[in-house]
Amino acid sequence: MKIFKSNFSEWYNEVLEACGIIDIRYPVKGMPVYRPWGFRALRNCFRLLEGMLDRSGHEQVLFPLLVPDDQFGKEADHIKGFGGEVLWVTHGGEEELERKLAVRPTSETVMYPMFGLWIRSHADLPLKVHQTLCVYRHDTKATKPLIRGREIYWNEAHTVHASADECELQVAEGVRIYKEFYDRLGVPYMILKRPKYDTFPGADYSLAFDALMPDGKVLQVGTVHNLGQNFAKVYEVSYADASGTKNYAYQTCYGISMRCLAAVIGVHGDDKGLVLPSAVAPAQVVVVPILFGENKGELLNKCKEVKAHLEAKGIRCEVDERELRPGEKYYHWESLGVPLHIELGPKELAAKKLVLVSRDGEKKTADEAHAFEEVKAMLDALDRRLLEKAHKWQQENLRSASDVKKLKELVAKKGGFVKIGWCESEACARKVETEAEAVIRGFECNKMEEMKCVACGKAGRAVWAAKSY
Amino acid sequence: MKIFKSNFSEWYNEVLEACGIIDIRYPVKGMPVYRPWGFRALRNCFRLLEGMLDRSGHEQVLFPLLVPDDQFGKEADHIKGFGGEVLWVTHGGEEELERKLAVRPTSETVMYPMFGLWIRSHADLPLKVHQTLCVYRHDTKATKPLIRGREIYWNEAHTVHASADECELQVAEGVRIYKEFYDRLGVPYMILKRPKYDTFPGADYSLAFDALMPDGKVLQVGTVHNLGQNFAKVYEVSYADASGTKNYAYQTCYGISMRCLAAVIGVHGDDKGLVLPSAVAPAQVVVVPILFGENKGELLNKCKEVKAHLEAKGIRCEVDERELRPGEKYYHWESLGVPLHIELGPKELAAKKLVLVSRDGEKKTADEAHAFEEVKAMLDALDRRLLEKAHKWQQENLRSASDVKKLKELVAKKGGFVKIGWCESEACARKVETEAEAVIRGFECNKMEEMKCVACGKAGRAVWAAKSY
Repeated sequence: MKIFKSNFSEWYNEVLEACGIIDIRYPVKGMPVYRPWGFRALRNCFRLLEGMLDRSGHEQVLFPLLVPDDQFGKEADHIKGFGGEVLWVTHGGEEELERKLAVRPTSETVMYPMFGLWIRSHADLPLKVHQTLCVYRHDTKATKPLIRGREIYWNEAHTVHASADECELQVAEGVRIYKEFYDRLGVPYMILKRPKYDTFPGADYSLAFDALMPDGKVLQVGTVHNLGQNFAKVYEVSYADASGTKNYAYQTCYGISMRCLAAVIGVHGDDKGLVLPSAVAPAQVVVVPILFGENKGELLNKCKEVKAHLEAKGIRCEVDERELRPGEKYYHWESLGVPLHIELGPKELAAKKLVLVSRDGEKKTADEAHAFEEVKAMLDALDRRLLEKAHKWQQENLRSASDVKKLKELVAKKGGFVKIGWCESEACARKVETEAEAVIRGFECNKMEEMKCVACGKAGRAVWAAKSY
Repeated sequence: MKIFKSNFSEWYNEVLEACGIIDIRYPVKGMPVYRPWGFRALRNCFRLLEGMLDRSGHEQVLFPLLVPDDQFGKEADHIKGFGGEVLWVTHGGEEELERKLAVRPTSETVMYPMFGLWIRSHADLPLKVHQTLCVYRHDTKATKPLIRGREIYWNEAHTVHASADECELQVAEGVRIYKEFYDRLGVPYMILKRPKYDTFPGADYSLAFDALMPDGKVLQVGTVHNLGQNFAKVYEVSYADASGTKNYAYQTCYGISMRCLAAVIGVHGDDKGLVLPSAVAPAQVVVVPILFGENKGELLNKCKEVKAHLEAKGIRCEVDERELRPGEKYYHWESLGVPLHIELGPKELAAKKLVLVSRDGEKKTADEAHAFEEVKAMLDALDRRLLEKAHKWQQENLRSASDVKKLKELVAKKGGFVKIGWCESEACARKVETEAEAVIRGFECNKMEEMKCVACGKAGRAVWAAKSY
């Protein structure tokens, strides 16, 4: 595999196939198959996220796939936003169902009527749950594996609170968890408050994590929504306060999809193939025996011993025993993005040493007795370098433009995030879209900078614009 | 909660609700909501199983939910067996789909066409994959939570082999893994080869794990199928052997559903509520501070220290800091099935001791310095007692009958497994069903015992019959 990342779109598709991430040949559009290497990477991402949510008091649950049509259609904005994309189950066997069932495009309408049953008083609050599963959207746009599809693997968290203030604090907690998650993945992000017209259907406001992909386009990789009381009023999510008075609750929801893996692949990969941070890699370490001369058995045993030692300490490790030259093996595991390989030949065996080589070329000879500490240190250092490199690259791709023409030129030639002024009118946003071929992604959180609108010249605020997926 | 297991059906439904396992009020029949305590228990079961499958060379994957109708209908027996229960997606938004899509009732028809693309030569074999997800069956019978529903949470493994012999060996590996799994859950089983008419649609033969529930009815909690070349021939799963000749491959599949949790709940529970083996329990240990007098802060800190110490060793542990009397807390956690609680009061604090109490009433005062070793030993001992008790109970419920009347009497009055003779004709099986109200569950594996047919008196083999879910 020699694949040049300079042509990102081609590189991306080739890596997904060659590294066994996804198979796009499944005969339903937008529903690819996750192959073993891909699914294990995805599983690692989501178990990491689930652990973070568990530890911050979110409890994992599982709600059904299907929603009765009347229950689905209750929240007006929500049905307007999702209705056109919903897949409908209409038949069971040969028989038409009495009531058609929506395949969840997201789970608000599935969950909130049940929240209404669960919550009686303020003592039942806050309620914080999350679930990992697939949602379905009959998207008519061109699909792109792990980025835009009709079957979306994700984790969605939903919370309920007694007051608007607590709800705001929960939004902040959601943001904090997602920041920590993407930091572990080494993926830089910009957290932006989406313009009103781009808010989640049914939410008061939406914050989004945008990551920059190598082709200069941005990818939304997570969202945190403050739902206010909008759904609570429709689905009767209410509680009795200390005095017994009924109040509608306040809600948030937030989600991260399989796009997190697309971002990892895009941000870190290189001309050799995948580069995976240790949190994501299905195998964090591969031990490659250098078999020649005598002592083959002893050498292999030592490799297995190293593996057992590392696994006992929680490192995901494999031994590559195949009948291939060591060089071929290094090449193979490098292309799959394995963070570290260990070379172990007769010389190392005799000296009780190991040669550790990181995916980005750092090499170190270490005492076998300190294998775990040395491996851990090298994995941590690699993760840090990946994050720093990605962060530096994102910083280099922040620009600004004072008019539509300049904006168009920047996003066309360089991509990245471009700061522009905007008066907050939808007409001007449309003008930016059609004339500059860029999308207004939103306001940087907790920053207020005055800047004249690039479209109409009137007073406005700084927002970030970009080409987007 | 005072719930008598002597009325098992009532007990079961009450425990599911009171312990927050399942909420059956969701408005689509047979699709309950997994609440936090229930989902965490379920997640523990499936992560345990996934780990076992991973370690034995099965790679986790994820295939899509939907199958085009023509692809679904290819294997004649399979479509006959499942066709009537399939949910169909016919519309996307307002538009009718060009091709209707089956919601997977199981994944053979989803996976095997892709296996056909993946496998080229014998070097690609064996292929062993598994996935955890929900399958959907529009079952018209009465639903029962975790036992019979329309949304079935499960793990399904699928394997492909070059020869019939390897395929047989794989069946044995599947059985071995499932045995180990149910041993860890403390659930005894009978492994039975199902009669021909009760074989999985499209399989050569099916082995099933049957567990005995407290009401004397048996529950199928796992199946292992030898598919032979039936699906391979239909979905073109073939490989070129060393000489380049094309051969159809041999396949197996096996699955375990959320019924594993139903079995755990049924087999171990008592009049106080749930009793969970340590592998399943969302919290394995709960530390209860006995707060009175001074030193409250110090006592709480010590509880948290114990928790941190146990968690670092991989124990799932919680501290119950609520403002309740200790007795109320013990009662609460016992009813939820927590295997072990730790009592920590001023006396223990001063003496650097902990009082450990197991769910079944074993009590021990231990040195705080050996907390982990003592906890681990008590959990292991509890798991052993649960398994032994359940095993003894199953053994006490093995009986035999030489005629239909006696069989009817036994299954009606005592339940359990009843050994009868059967000539292997379907007519006699139907007679047993209608006249004795018992189902022939199958032949005990690797045992051949001659026994006259209870229905027709002709020569036959011993099989096990029972009332079943």
